[in-house]
Amino acid sequence: MTSYFFSFEGPDGAGKTTIISMVESFLRDKGWDVVATREPGGIEIAEKIRDIILNPAHKVMDGRTEALLYAAARRQHLVEKVIPALKDGKIVLCDRFIDSSLAYQGFARGLGIDEVLSINQFAIEGYFPTLTLYFDIDPKIGLERIYGNEKREINRLDLESLSFHENVRKGYLQLVERFPERIVLLDASKSVADVFADAISILMGNLEKNMP
Amino acid sequence: MTSYFFSFEGPDGAGKTTIISMVESFLRDKGWDVVATREPGGIEIAEKIRDIILNPAHKVMDGRTEALLYAAARRQHLVEKVIPALKDGKIVLCDRFIDSSLAYQGFARGLGIDEVLSINQFAIEGYFPTLTLYFDIDPKIGLERIYGNEKREINRLDLESLSFHENVRKGYLQLVERFPERIVLLDASKSVADVFADAISILMGNLEKNMP
Repeated sequence: MTSYFFSFEGPDGAGKTTIISMVESFLRDKGWDVVATREPGGIEIAEKIRDIILNPAHKVMDGRTEALLYAAARRQHLVEKVIPALKDGKIVLCDRFIDSSLAYQGFARGLGIDEVLSINQFAIEGYFPTLTLYFDIDPKIGLERIYGNEKREINRLDLESLSFHENVRKGYLQLVERFPERIVLLDASKSVADVFADAISILMGNLEKNMP
Repeated sequence: MTSYFFSFEGPDGAGKTTIISMVESFLRDKGWDVVATREPGGIEIAEKIRDIILNPAHKVMDGRTEALLYAAARRQHLVEKVIPALKDGKIVLCDRFIDSSLAYQGFARGLGIDEVLSINQFAIEGYFPTLTLYFDIDPKIGLERIYGNEKREINRLDLESLSFHENVRKGYLQLVERFPERIVLLDASKSVADVFADAISILMGNLEKNMP
C-alpha cells in the first residue's frame, strides 16, 4: 500500500505552520482524508517525555540524553498516531520529524548527523517520510519574522542565536544533499501565496505519481 | 588514567545486590574509594525517566520507546554520577548497566541485540565497564529464591515468566561469548560465601593488573 507521509522542516519563522494549515484545507477540499500533527501530538507518553526535555530546572541535561528523549517521544507519537493514520490510508502532514533532530542536535549542537540518525533509525524503524518539504530561509529573515521588525539594535544574544540558526541551516542543506530523493527545498523567503503554490505543486505531483 | 568501572549483571534472585554490598565493604576495608550505584541512582532526570517507564498506566508504551528511555536514563546517570566518580579515581560498582538492556530488551523482548547495542553506544560514548561480572543461574533456582520455597503448583504465569527468564539467560550467554574480554561468568548457584570469593578473586586480579 502506498502511504502519504509528508513532513515539513525548517526553522521557526519560515512559515511551516501557516502552510501546513493551508495544505490541510486544500487537500480536504479535494476529498482527501488528512491528519495534521506535530510531536508530541497529544500522545500522553510523548507529552510526558517532552515535559522532561523542556523543564527549565533540568539544566544538567546532557545533549545525548536529550537526543534519546526526543527519539523516544518520536517513536511513541509515530506508533500511536502516525502509523495508524497511514494504515487507514490517510495523508499525514507532520510539522517537524527526524530531520529536525538531525539538523538541530546532530549538526548545530555537534552530536553528529550520523550518530543522531542512528538512534532515530531505531526509533522510526523505516518510517521515513514519503516526502519532506524543507522551508529554506536566511536565518536573519526568519528571526525578524519571529521577533517582529522592531528597530532595536542587535545584541549579543541575537548574534549567538543567529550563528546557531546559521548552523541549523547548514545542517538542513547537508540533509538536502544527502537525501535528494526525499527532501525538496522550498524558497521560504517568497510570499505565503507563492510558498503555498510551490508546496501544493510538489505534494500534488507526488500524490498523482503514487495514485493507484 | 586507568578507571575501575565494574558492572554486575544477571537476573533478579541471582544475589547481585548482596554481593555488591559485600564487595563494597571489602574494598573500602582495603582502603579503596568506592561508589556503589544502580540506575537511575538518585539522578533527578533519570528518576523522572524511570517514572515514565514504570508507570502502570502506560500500557501502550512501545518496546522501542522503552529501550530509548532506558538509554536516556543510563546516559544521564553515567554523566552525572559514574563519570565524575571515575575521574576522581574511585572504583564504581554498578548494579546492572548496558548488558541488562541487551539481554532483556535486545534478546528476550526481541528488539535485537545489535539494535539495542547501537542506541546504547550512543548513550555511553565508549564508557563500557572495565569488567562485568555476570551472575549465571538456572532461572528456576533464581525464581525460587525470589518467591521463596512455598510448595505450590507452578501456574501459567510462572511458566511464562520462566520461559522469559530462560530467554534472558540465553541473551546473557550470547553476550559472554561476544565480549569475552569484558564479561566474566560467575556460577551464582553456589553459596553466597563462594560467589563472593569468586567475585573478589576476579576483581582483585583486575585491580592489581591495572595498578599503577
